[in-house]
Amino acid sequence: MPVGTHGAVRGVLPDELQTIGARMILANTYHLSLRPGAGTIARAGGLHRFMGWEGPILTDSGGYQVFSLSNFRKIDDEGVHFRSHLDGSEIFLTPESAIEIQEQLGADVAMILDQCPPYPATREEVASAVERTQHWARRCRDRAKRPDQALFGIVQGGIFPDLREESLAGLLPLGFEGMAIGGISVGEPRSLQRRVVEHLAPRLPSDTPRYLMGVGFPDDILDAVAAGIDLFDCVVPTRHGRNGSVFTRDGLINIRNATFAEDFRPFDENCPCTACTGFTRAYARHLILAGEMVGARLCTLHNLSFYLDLLAGSRRAIESGTFESFRRDFLDRFPRSPETPSARRKTETP
Amino acid sequence: MPVGTHGAVRGVLPDELQTIGARMILANTYHLSLRPGAGTIARAGGLHRFMGWEGPILTDSGGYQVFSLSNFRKIDDEGVHFRSHLDGSEIFLTPESAIEIQEQLGADVAMILDQCPPYPATREEVASAVERTQHWARRCRDRAKRPDQALFGIVQGGIFPDLREESLAGLLPLGFEGMAIGGISVGEPRSLQRRVVEHLAPRLPSDTPRYLMGVGFPDDILDAVAAGIDLFDCVVPTRHGRNGSVFTRDGLINIRNATFAEDFRPFDENCPCTACTGFTRAYARHLILAGEMVGARLCTLHNLSFYLDLLAGSRRAIESGTFESFRRDFLDRFPRSPETPSARRKTETP
Repeated sequence: MPVGTHGAVRGVLPDELQTIGARMILANTYHLSLRPGAGTIARAGGLHRFMGWEGPILTDSGGYQVFSLSNFRKIDDEGVHFRSHLDGSEIFLTPESAIEIQEQLGADVAMILDQCPPYPATREEVASAVERTQHWARRCRDRAKRPDQALFGIVQGGIFPDLREESLAGLLPLGFEGMAIGGISVGEPRSLQRRVVEHLAPRLPSDTPRYLMGVGFPDDILDAVAAGIDLFDCVVPTRHGRNGSVFTRDGLINIRNATFAEDFRPFDENCPCTACTGFTRAYARHLILAGEMVGARLCTLHNLSFYLDLLAGSRRAIESGTFESFRRDFLDRFPRSPETPSARRKTETP
Repeated sequence: MPVGTHGAVRGVLPDELQTIGARMILANTYHLSLRPGAGTIARAGGLHRFMGWEGPILTDSGGYQVFSLSNFRKIDDEGVHFRSHLDGSEIFLTPESAIEIQEQLGADVAMILDQCPPYPATREEVASAVERTQHWARRCRDRAKRPDQALFGIVQGGIFPDLREESLAGLLPLGFEGMAIGGISVGEPRSLQRRVVEHLAPRLPSDTPRYLMGVGFPDDILDAVAAGIDLFDCVVPTRHGRNGSVFTRDGLINIRNATFAEDFRPFDENCPCTACTGFTRAYARHLILAGEMVGARLCTLHNLSFYLDLLAGSRRAIESGTFESFRRDFLDRFPRSPETPSARRKTETP
């Protein structure tokens, strides 16, 4: 899912998303509820109509952004008190209000409000977040009313396998329409992240979607697909794109580099996107250096196309039983991402 | 002509320009020669290929930008010494180098290097600029070699009708493929601007294009069309667009205004552009306030579409002999622009 924080994937229009094969997008409840407000979007006829996207939309619950973006927060069993990063106003988010807001937005998939501890956190802190997430999950399930909106649970538990299993075991009886792994890529080393996903993904229900939140680089995604994950969201392709970091079959390139000044090839010879069929690296470099919006558009569009093609290729390979060789072929050329996670925030900058 | 300062119309791709009816665009020689450099563009196969635009392109000579953007300048009969606004490097622009650069860029129409005095200027200053422009025009004509590139003259003379006529009389024997009115909208009141255009436009050769440089608002354009002008370039639709100022049939609106927070109508009910057929004022307002690129794209695309429709309507009305009533009908609803020119710089900000 490309990320449309403010109800628009940065720089990209819905028909362009469709052309490059996007099926579903994510929008951020935290941002949209502060501006323009869930009421405005409801009165516009819902988020699909407001933003002109006819495909499925998933909204997060806003919890993660409260913990990562807002200026002040106090958390108790009832909910989270925080201040808007826009105007400092005090807001109280509860499991019930998180659901109500998402019902107003009208997404196809809503997420429960969870507590997502940062890394590192003590076992006690993580256990407490698991317990609170469990209570909140039940309250979300009880409040959710829209028959046309799926509700996904979120497994917490940090890097502790037994707490992850405990969290999952608590959520299963609540009958969610999909299950997500949360609390990943919050600062932990990638090797630990991979271990959690490999442990937990096969344990998620296989008859509903398995969603890994906020991950990641192409190699992370292929690893997670191998472990059984179906659904991803990540700001990497869009954020990297508008900064001029471009994904190619041979790895990430920084298009600002002087080496591309007269590189009149496309980003990627075999990519069918608008950027690659009509424009060169030299042109994109020039526009990014000049601060021209079209440069950000081209790099973003290509990166999204690259990610969507990677997942489409994975689906086809799974269907034909060749996923392992597909993954190996990809990783033979595409360098592994560095161990320390970077630029992995799960939300576009406010 | 939409303005593509850096070899891209801000935020808009070539196929979008085609869809809204753009036929010809302008690119700025000054900007492109500093970055990425005329040599790079020549090696890319020329500006059309570099930027992916198959229609005609006009490049200015760079003179106007030297006078308005660069940090230091010294002008003599030979040419203009100035410093790049990017890195302070010293550059010497002559009539010959202005032509050579434009031949490297490979535009369909090149402009002569002219001297454009600001307003107010004394009669002596303006007379001297007319004389210098005349000498430079001859040197440009002598240097121009590309058989596939038209060269347009530029009439100077400020607000002095006799100097304008003298400038025109000097240029006519040089046999340019088109004639432009320069030195307009450089700070003079709109009433004076209109007087110059009304005096001069009918005197320009009628068998080649008559081009009014850097004008303007919709009412300016209709007045100039009435006076006989064929061709315009202006940054107003793009610059206004990305700041959230949107042209409607009833005048300019500032989409940031709270009054549009829940205005779920398109910018303009009858406009066929992507912004108007798919999105609302409320959505555009939200995106502009959030600093989201898609907001700038939608407003820019609509404004360009508005301008292009205005000119297409003018052409049809001229052909059917109804231009005067077309103009009157338009101006009955669309408020006249204020007397003092504002935001009329002929170049997009660097």
